[in-house]
Amino acid sequence: MGRLTGGDPSLLRRINSAVVLHALRGGDARTLTDLTRLTGLSRPTVEGVTEGLIEAGLVVEAGPEEREVRRQGRPARRFRFRAEAGHLLGIEIGPHRVAALLSGLDGRIIGAGTRGVAVTASADERLERVRSAVADVLRRTGVARGALRAVGVGTPGIVEADGTVRLCTALPGWTGLALGERLRRSFRCPVLVENDANAAAVAEHWKGAAIDSDDIVFVLAGLSPGAGSLIGGRLHRGFGGAAGEIGALHLLGRGDKPETLLSTTDEPLHPLDEHAVAEVFTAARRGDERAMAAVDRFTQRLVHDVGALVLALDPEVVVVGGWAAGLDGILPPLREELARFCLRPPRVELSLLGEAAVATGALRLALDHVEEQLFAVEGTVTARR
Amino acid sequence: MGRLTGGDPSLLRRINSAVVLHALRGGDARTLTDLTRLTGLSRPTVEGVTEGLIEAGLVVEAGPEEREVRRQGRPARRFRFRAEAGHLLGIEIGPHRVAALLSGLDGRIIGAGTRGVAVTASADERLERVRSAVADVLRRTGVARGALRAVGVGTPGIVEADGTVRLCTALPGWTGLALGERLRRSFRCPVLVENDANAAAVAEHWKGAAIDSDDIVFVLAGLSPGAGSLIGGRLHRGFGGAAGEIGALHLLGRGDKPETLLSTTDEPLHPLDEHAVAEVFTAARRGDERAMAAVDRFTQRLVHDVGALVLALDPEVVVVGGWAAGLDGILPPLREELARFCLRPPRVELSLLGEAAVATGALRLALDHVEEQLFAVEGTVTARR
Repeated sequence: MGRLTGGDPSLLRRINSAVVLHALRGGDARTLTDLTRLTGLSRPTVEGVTEGLIEAGLVVEAGPEEREVRRQGRPARRFRFRAEAGHLLGIEIGPHRVAALLSGLDGRIIGAGTRGVAVTASADERLERVRSAVADVLRRTGVARGALRAVGVGTPGIVEADGTVRLCTALPGWTGLALGERLRRSFRCPVLVENDANAAAVAEHWKGAAIDSDDIVFVLAGLSPGAGSLIGGRLHRGFGGAAGEIGALHLLGRGDKPETLLSTTDEPLHPLDEHAVAEVFTAARRGDERAMAAVDRFTQRLVHDVGALVLALDPEVVVVGGWAAGLDGILPPLREELARFCLRPPRVELSLLGEAAVATGALRLALDHVEEQLFAVEGTVTARR
Repeated sequence: MGRLTGGDPSLLRRINSAVVLHALRGGDARTLTDLTRLTGLSRPTVEGVTEGLIEAGLVVEAGPEEREVRRQGRPARRFRFRAEAGHLLGIEIGPHRVAALLSGLDGRIIGAGTRGVAVTASADERLERVRSAVADVLRRTGVARGALRAVGVGTPGIVEADGTVRLCTALPGWTGLALGERLRRSFRCPVLVENDANAAAVAEHWKGAAIDSDDIVFVLAGLSPGAGSLIGGRLHRGFGGAAGEIGALHLLGRGDKPETLLSTTDEPLHPLDEHAVAEVFTAARRGDERAMAAVDRFTQRLVHDVGALVLALDPEVVVVGGWAAGLDGILPPLREELARFCLRPPRVELSLLGEAAVATGALRLALDHVEEQLFAVEGTVTARR
């Protein structure tokens, strides 16, 4: 049973500090008068808190170029949030490539780097590519490794809370890998590992196709689709971190594997051979009948899988990303079939972030972690945004 | 932006009041010394708050039989929660029957009543059966209608927040019915309408097969299954209240309707003819090959539908209820297939509440509503249990 332990002055100071910092994060430099008005705090409180934030390195007096110009008299001092007080990395580790995005504490991206990697690469090779991509982006932006406050990582598979990959069929050597622990050796800050589709869902909600909704399903459409979902704006990982792994549904139905489904010959495609898959779609557009039948089988399967997610979760918006989202003729049948058969059909949108979705979501998760530290106040009282 | 507005004496009084009431709801009569120890509040505060609760009718001094017996001296006064200070109804409105459960403010059931109703009954007829069942249970228990504090209702279909049925294929005249509004004419207290599978999920979590888990899916298994789910202990309704309506999944796959799937002739069964369905299962047990094939098709479909829910949501426990849960041979294949194909298979349990699940969940929803009024304190500060 919780009880109010009112009147803790340090708690109050932290709340006021978070309130002022939040008001400053909008971007513009603010005067003390602005802050008093925005926060509803008294002027002496705002002054004291701002001094504390300056000492902590999170706030700085704005330079002359950010100040208003007055004909006479001394201009009012203005303060701004120091986005450069710390940096964040968002990393995607995928079958074909690794990617890294770098931002300041405001989440604005200031650097990016990618490295190709063979589908068959070992875990060590893949991690070496990650380190190389990260070193490159840090070097090019001149950001010191020690300035990193948090690193987010998006990767295929079921990921435990400690960053261990419990199960991953897409990347060699990935199942059982203590990915969080391995990466923490490269960074002296928290490393947060998340399933790639989950990260992409977060990204599309942050700055993609679903910024206006808190109830979304992101479908990472490939041969075997995965999904991430936000419920009430919060990532739904499931009890064991396996929510959205809808690709296994056809196994339950004893259906064909997707690599057989989309093959135009008697041989299945290689599950990660996107080039061969794209060729089937190209052939279908040319009118090749076997290819058209294969694409139809593939599309029906995707509709069925997305339908299962929609019926189970009833999201407001479905965002379709992953390489298959870029294929012609995927979205219209998805929209039509969901509208026909779902009791309350969702909006269906194409990913706006495309290839950047997973790394962007990983970056957002890193930012969430840092913001929790900057803004959270222990217990049940939090500043609402 | 939220800020602490500390030192509101009426807020503090309400918090303390909720804290003391919560301590008393455990069941046993308590002395003021007990309450001081249990709540951490001062003795004068406990005394003042208890007086207020007695005036409000929620607490009473316990009778002599509830007091400790002492050889000498005056025994300490004991106080108990007045569960009889108000009453709650949980109502199921189903295709074949309506049922009502009555409880005091402690949620303990003190009366029950059911009425059969024809599948083909009109909405008015069905509501008349509801009123009759309710009048009967109130009369037999001697509880006045005016003593009802809240009524919960569970019914098939997609239900809007105001209690209007947006869509229901199972009951004639149900789609578009302002069910909440209609029932509010019979009661002078809040009426909360909920989808039946959602209500059953709440019930199994409260006092059924899933009391030890906060992440559950309840499957209302019939010819066409529906589902309700709790995520982190909270009901997941979906953006449009349609979450869990997995029965539509086979439509997306252009599969047979369930009434065709389970037929042993060329004619489909009537979708709500449970007797005919049970006969198919009986024939299958006798070794009838057509019946065995029909049961196998039905079971595979159920496994597929439940698999879709499990892959989308990743619950800790799946509880299977509804009439099909009582059929022989349903659970073992469900357990086996989920264990084989789900990346993280959930526990699969049979409903413990059986036919009572929907009404029990409706009762719990009514109780939740009243408890919110008794215990909730406005704003962001709430007493944790």
